[in-house]
Amino acid sequence: MKLVCSQSDLNTNLSLVSRAVPSKPTHPVLGNVLLEADAQQGRVNLTAFDLSLGIQTSFAAQVTEGGIVTLPAKLLNDIVSRLPEGEITLAYNDEDTESALASLTSTSGRYQVRAMGAEEFPELPVIKSEEELVLPTSVLAEGLRGALFAASSDETKQILTGVHLMTMPDNLEFAATDGHRLAVVQTQKQAETNISEFAVTIPARALRDLEKMLTMRQATDSVKLRFDEGQVVFELGQQRLTSRKLEGAYPAYDQLIPQQFERFLSVERKRLLSGLELVSVLADTKNSIVKFSIDSEQQQLALSVDAQDVGSAKESMPAEVSGDSIEIAFNVKYLTDGLKALPAENIQMQLNTATQPVVFKPLGGLQMTYLVMPVQIRS
Amino acid sequence: MKLVCSQSDLNTNLSLVSRAVPSKPTHPVLGNVLLEADAQQGRVNLTAFDLSLGIQTSFAAQVTEGGIVTLPAKLLNDIVSRLPEGEITLAYNDEDTESALASLTSTSGRYQVRAMGAEEFPELPVIKSEEELVLPTSVLAEGLRGALFAASSDETKQILTGVHLMTMPDNLEFAATDGHRLAVVQTQKQAETNISEFAVTIPARALRDLEKMLTMRQATDSVKLRFDEGQVVFELGQQRLTSRKLEGAYPAYDQLIPQQFERFLSVERKRLLSGLELVSVLADTKNSIVKFSIDSEQQQLALSVDAQDVGSAKESMPAEVSGDSIEIAFNVKYLTDGLKALPAENIQMQLNTATQPVVFKPLGGLQMTYLVMPVQIRS
Repeated sequence: MKLVCSQSDLNTNLSLVSRAVPSKPTHPVLGNVLLEADAQQGRVNLTAFDLSLGIQTSFAAQVTEGGIVTLPAKLLNDIVSRLPEGEITLAYNDEDTESALASLTSTSGRYQVRAMGAEEFPELPVIKSEEELVLPTSVLAEGLRGALFAASSDETKQILTGVHLMTMPDNLEFAATDGHRLAVVQTQKQAETNISEFAVTIPARALRDLEKMLTMRQATDSVKLRFDEGQVVFELGQQRLTSRKLEGAYPAYDQLIPQQFERFLSVERKRLLSGLELVSVLADTKNSIVKFSIDSEQQQLALSVDAQDVGSAKESMPAEVSGDSIEIAFNVKYLTDGLKALPAENIQMQLNTATQPVVFKPLGGLQMTYLVMPVQIRS
Repeated sequence: MKLVCSQSDLNTNLSLVSRAVPSKPTHPVLGNVLLEADAQQGRVNLTAFDLSLGIQTSFAAQVTEGGIVTLPAKLLNDIVSRLPEGEITLAYNDEDTESALASLTSTSGRYQVRAMGAEEFPELPVIKSEEELVLPTSVLAEGLRGALFAASSDETKQILTGVHLMTMPDNLEFAATDGHRLAVVQTQKQAETNISEFAVTIPARALRDLEKMLTMRQATDSVKLRFDEGQVVFELGQQRLTSRKLEGAYPAYDQLIPQQFERFLSVERKRLLSGLELVSVLADTKNSIVKFSIDSEQQQLALSVDAQDVGSAKESMPAEVSGDSIEIAFNVKYLTDGLKALPAENIQMQLNTATQPVVFKPLGGLQMTYLVMPVQIRS
């Protein structure tokens, strides 16, 4: 195998697939990236796969001798990312399996790394189903932005570690919950599909990698989503991301969202966020509770924290309040996570009593619902 | 006590003194900052002191009622740094020692923090000696930049955890060594003094804080250094940094520096640094050894690392070599530390054999000597 490519192409594509390389591989070959040089097409294909998440990418190169081999992903990435811009020659003698060294030559340097045969590398799952959904990068990106943060990071919570994607009559719905809060985004459908309806739960970890891959694409580029019983695959031009699906029934979250509210409050999102950041300096780090005093008469919202033996903090800001005044408390972290993801200058809080779920919505723009359970205040 | 000041003044000065607040105070009051409001002068003085390092600063404020109190440094800093720009009112009722709460009011917020009486706060050492050294900020800064990194960070190494400052006939010399490498900087004296000669070893930790304080000053502003048997104090306008001196005799480092060399090599500093960074990717993380192959015929320097079972790396670069070709090896970390501190575009390596100390010097500019012991190569 022998090929010449640019440092920047190799670097970009190696970093991309490296996301699917486990930091502690269960088998040595999983710490490697599969490199396939296609002399006819003049292309190099890279694949990494941790048995759950797989990423594949391809770029143009001068391939003088085709071949296939696996190389240590982290080491190769560390070298290539530090090399100056310019041409890189990658060579491997397929017949010399004894030394098994691949060589990488740049303008001023020469590197040798230990290769492993491609036959040991596991095959990426192939999805034979014809059913597919085609949607613009921007639609997928805004769904992920509004929902991903709310998924559970606790691996024992299984289905809650994923994001639920579902077609609705007029749009596509993304939902994620960790049991304490729930984020739901309804994007404009703008999706072509040959499936009447579908619902799938995809691991958040795979979607975080997908989100990064999306940032490298144009907003109008389309992404193709295909799936079968056990797997999903996202196709982004020359790149593919495959992931196993999460098994089990996703919670019926729509039943958690109140249909009617007694109180509404509109406030500037950034003002609320910086107020929360300020008062939470006084809050207990383990259990950061902040009290909202919503004053209908003064059309004002005051955030406060009282920390025994330490001190107290209070920040006030103007707000449009309708309904009676009320005091209600929240865990700060759940609020700040949601407020960062709400894509609007002003947001609306919708609430009933101090013990019922509260909904945050952007004013204008995206259809997003962020539901948080309040915390009971001792009086 | 009552005063009004700007958020940015309070913030800048609080961050500054906070460097002298221990993260785990041995006595609660050491976690506090001493705040003194002087109504006559219209100034606020802040002091923090961990019993070894003390920092004092002062800024203008509208003091309507003078007073003195100590406040929790980290908490106050966390609040003030997050507050928006604008006026801050700080108030403390000296007679209400029971609740002992100081209040801080901004445009939209109100904070209360627990105060402690100033009488418990230890006094900063006072230096009565008349002996002093006055030098420009730039001279002190360049001495610290070239020497500080070479001091030992191992607290058991006592005197080696400091930087040695000494007057020479024509200049001021800064030296630091951790036993494996040595950095010596001779600055232009440009210092006024009433002392015939002096030598002092100052803890690197205090000097790192001093270095940060220097970045906030003009290059030509002068710094006054005064000392007695146990303490040193640096006076920078309205700011002071006091530190204990390190006891004991500093090693006679000038004896370690060879007087004559058989070989010289000049190379571009950044090229050498990036070459080292590249080949050390292959090096063992614990014991990163890189081999220099100095080729007098080809006027070339090659850096190489051979890692059994992993691979190998080699980077070559042009160099001006005089003397015979040689192979010599170093611990990468010592080289990169020194090369980052050497203030020149090109540097010169001066060496004898593969087992004798090697000196790195900047070509032009500052007088700096960086000495490193080579590592023996098994052949």
